[in-house]
Amino acid sequence: MKDLISVNQINRQIFEDIFHFFKEYKNRYKNGETKISDLRGYSVLLPFFEESTRTRTSFELAGKIMGADTINISGSSSSIKKGETLYDTIKTLEAMQSDFIVIRHSMAGAAHIVAKEVKSHVINAGDGAHEHPSQALLDAFTILEHKGKIEGLKIAIIGDILHSRVARSDMKLLKMLGAEITVCGPQTMLPRHMEVFDVDYVTTNIDDALKDKDVAIFLRIQLERQKKVFFSTLNEYSIKYGLNQKRIDLLKEDAVIMHPGPVNRGVEMQSELVYGERSLILEQVENGLFTRMAIYRFLIEQ
Amino acid sequence: MKDLISVNQINRQIFEDIFHFFKEYKNRYKNGETKISDLRGYSVLLPFFEESTRTRTSFELAGKIMGADTINISGSSSSIKKGETLYDTIKTLEAMQSDFIVIRHSMAGAAHIVAKEVKSHVINAGDGAHEHPSQALLDAFTILEHKGKIEGLKIAIIGDILHSRVARSDMKLLKMLGAEITVCGPQTMLPRHMEVFDVDYVTTNIDDALKDKDVAIFLRIQLERQKKVFFSTLNEYSIKYGLNQKRIDLLKEDAVIMHPGPVNRGVEMQSELVYGERSLILEQVENGLFTRMAIYRFLIEQ
Amino acid sequence: MKDLISVNQINRQIFEDIFHFFKEYKNRYKNGETKISDLRGYSVLLPFFEESTRTRTSFELAGKIMGADTINISGSSSSIKKGETLYDTIKTLEAMQSDFIVIRHSMAGAAHIVAKEVKSHVINAGDGAHEHPSQALLDAFTILEHKGKIEGLKIAIIGDILHSRVARSDMKLLKMLGAEITVCGPQTMLPRHMEVFDVDYVTTNIDDALKDKDVAIFLRIQLERQKKVFFSTLNEYSIKYGLNQKRIDLLKEDAVIMHPGPVNRGVEMQSELVYGERSLILEQVENGLFTRMAIYRFLIEQ
Repeated sequence: MKDLISVNQINRQIFEDIFHFFKEYKNRYKNGETKISDLRGYSVLLPFFEESTRTRTSFELAGKIMGADTINISGSSSSIKKGETLYDTIKTLEAMQSDFIVIRHSMAGAAHIVAKEVKSHVINAGDGAHEHPSQALLDAFTILEHKGKIEGLKIAIIGDILHSRVARSDMKLLKMLGAEITVCGPQTMLPRHMEVFDVDYVTTNIDDALKDKDVAIFLRIQLERQKKVFFSTLNEYSIKYGLNQKRIDLLKEDAVIMHPGPVNRGVEMQSELVYGERSLILEQVENGLFTRMAIYRFLIEQ
Repeated sequence: MKDLISVNQINRQIFEDIFHFFKEYKNRYKNGETKISDLRGYSVLLPFFEESTRTRTSFELAGKIMGADTINISGSSSSIKKGETLYDTIKTLEAMQSDFIVIRHSMAGAAHIVAKEVKSHVINAGDGAHEHPSQALLDAFTILEHKGKIEGLKIAIIGDILHSRVARSDMKLLKMLGAEITVCGPQTMLPRHMEVFDVDYVTTNIDDALKDKDVAIFLRIQLERQKKVFFSTLNEYSIKYGLNQKRIDLLKEDAVIMHPGPVNRGVEMQSELVYGERSLILEQVENGLFTRMAIYRFLIEQ
Repeated sequence: MKDLISVNQINRQIFEDIFHFFKEYKNRYKNGETKISDLRGYSVLLPFFEESTRTRTSFELAGKIMGADTINISGSSSSIKKGETLYDTIKTLEAMQSDFIVIRHSMAGAAHIVAKEVKSHVINAGDGAHEHPSQALLDAFTILEHKGKIEGLKIAIIGDILHSRVARSDMKLLKMLGAEITVCGPQTMLPRHMEVFDVDYVTTNIDDALKDKDVAIFLRIQLERQKKVFFSTLNEYSIKYGLNQKRIDLLKEDAVIMHPGPVNRGVEMQSELVYGERSLILEQVENGLFTRMAIYRFLIEQ
C-alpha cells in the first residue's frame, strides 16, 4: 500500500495499524515529545488545487513535527495557471524526489490517477465530491476514543450526503467497521440508489435520523459552491435540518456530535452547540494532526 | 502575560526583560550563532488576514532561526473565504496544538478577542488602525541603541496620526518610557481630543514639530487604503509634510529619522534621505528580527 | 563571485566547480543522504514576482534539504502591492540578515540591479526575457551526463528564441562550452542580428535545424503572455515547429530531446513524445534540484 487514496483500501487490519501509530504519536506528543525525526530526510509536497486551511495546515504541520521538509504548492500561484496538466505537475514533483505528494483537487479520481504514475507516496486530501480518507480516519479514531468501539454503534450522518466527500468516506469506513449508518438530508441531497452507498437507513426526517443514535455527524453546507438562489432557503434548511437543543435530546444520553468544519453557525447547528459539551469538533481537529502523522508513518513502513 | 496584544501591557520591567532578550539574541546572532534551538518543538502559526512582507517575514524567520515549525495561513487561501468566523479559525489553530498564533487582522481588537479564548500565546501583528506592539518595541529598542536612553528624549511623530496603528503603539510606549511626544499632521489626520492620546504637543506645522527633536518618526501614507481623490493632493502632502534636507536641519544635530516602511519615496520623505546618514530605517528592519525572537522567548518564559 | 546573475559570469573553471558540487550532491542524495547540514544557519529568501512552480519549488527544496531556513515571498501577497520599489524590498530582505535572495522578476536586469546593492548572495531565478542561469546550468549538466562532453556537440534550440530567457542563457553557456548552436523559429521570433547572440546557424526551417543534431532543446510557447489572436495560429505553429516522430528521425540516432517545462502538449511536441525514450525532460527537473544545491554551495565557498 504505497498510497492512501480511498477508504476502500482500508480493511480492519490496516485500520488497526494506523490507529496504533495514531495512539503512539498522540501519546508521545502529549508527553512533551513535540519534535520527532521519523520523517527526517523525507520531503512532503502539498499541491492544493482547492483552498483549505485545516487539512493543508494539518498535513503540513504533521510533516514538520516529524522532521520532513514540506513545500506548499497552491493552484493559484503555480504552473497550473500556465495550463500545465495535472499529470505533468505531479510527474515534475516526483522528479524533484518527493517522498510524499499530498494532493487536493476538485476532480473526483484525481489522486487515484496520479498515484499510479509516480513512485512517491500519494495521499488524497480530498478529490471533488469523491473521497477524503484522512478525514474518515480521524473521525473514526475520535469516535473510537470516546466510545471504545465502533462495531454496533448507531451513527447518523446529516446534510448534503450526495455531494459530500466526507460523507462518502465516513459512510464506507464506519460501515466496514461495523456501525449502523443512517443518512438524512433533503430529498435533493440524498442518494437515489441506497444500495450504492450501502447504508442502513435513509430518511428525510432529521428527528427520525437522530433518535437513539450514539453519534451524529453533521456535514457542511458548502455555501461557496451553491448558487445565490440557495441562500433564500438557508433559514429553511436550518429549521428542517439544523441541530438545536431539542434535537440533541433525541440522541442517546451519551451521544457525541461531530462536524468536519468549518461550521456555518446557525445553519448546520445552533451557534451555542458548536463547542458544547457533546461536541467533538475541536477534538476532531486535534486528532487530525496525529492521524496525518500516523498516515505518513504507515505508508513508509509498508 | 500569555500574549502580546497591546503596548498597554508593557511596563518598564517588562520592557527591560524583552530588551534583555533582544540584546542577547542580536549579540549571539552577530557572533555567528545563526541557528538556535530555543523554540525547537514549538509551532508558530501565522494567520495573516491582511497582506504584509516585512512583519510576516520577520516573525516567520525569527521562529525558524529559533527552531520552531512555522505555518503561514493567508486570508485569501483559507477557510476565511468559506465564511468561517475568526473565532472558529483561531480555535481550530489552537486545536492543532499551536504554541504561538501571530495574527494580523483588519479589525481593531481582533487579537485581543481571540487571545482570551485560546491557550496558545497570541501575538498581535497589527489589528486595523489600533495597535502594532512589536513595531513599537523594535522602534524603542532602535532608539535606545542609538541614544542610550529614551527618558527625556524629544520625539516627533509625523503623518496620519489618527489612522496609524504604528503611531498609536509608538506614542503610548515611548511616552511610558519617559519621552516627550509631539505629533504632527494635517488637521484631518490628527486626534481631536489630545488627552486620549496623552501626547505632549499636537501641531499641524511640521517645522514646529521637528525643531530641536532627537528623533523624528515618519508614518506611511497608506495610499492603498485611500480613495483615488487623495492622489491629487499627494504632491501637496509632500510639500507640507514630507522630509527634505532643509527640514532635517531643524532637528538636533545628532537626531535620527525613522519610518516603519515601506516608504512612499517622494511623499513622506525625499528619496535620497531614505537611507541617508540620519536614517535608521534598515536598522529598524534588522532589529525587528531580533525583537520578534525576544518576544517569543519572553512569552514562553512567563 | 557573490551572485549568480548571468551565464556571462561562468567560465570553464566555474562551470567545472559547480558541476563538481552537482555531482557530489546528486551522488550523496542517491546514496540515501537526503538531509545535509551545509546551509544550517543560513537563510534563503525567495521573492518571486512572477509565478513559478518548478523553479521556486526546486530552489526552496534544495535549500531545505541543505538545512537552510527558507521564506517564500510572492509578488501578490506582499508590500509590492503597496507600491514599494524593488530596491526597497530587497534592502529590507538584506536587513533581515538574508544570506541568499533568490529572485524572479518580470524586468530584465532586475537581479543585476539589486545584487550590486546588497551583501546577500543574489541568484537570478529568471528576469523577464533576459536570463535564467540556473536553467542553463542544469541543461548543460544534463547534456554532460548523457553525452560525456559538450565540446563539439551539435545543438538545436527551437521556438521563440527572441523572447526566451532560457534560450538566451542556454545559447551563451553551451556556446562557451564549445557546442555548435543552431537556432530555429518563426521569422518573428528570431534574432535580427545573429552576431548579437553568437550562434552558428539561424533558420526558420525546423527540418534543417534538427538534421544530424545531438541535442534538440524545445522552448515553451508562452501562451499566457500572448494575446488571444495568437491562439488561432497555435495549430499552425505545431505543424511548422512542433516535434513529431518524423522529425525525431532527422536527429542523430542517439540524440536527446529537452524542454524547460511546462510543455504545451500538442504544441511544442506531440503528447506521446513528452516522456518518450529520447526525452530528458524529467531528468532536467531532477537535475534542477541538485544544480540549485550546487549553486548555493559554490556561492558560499567563494
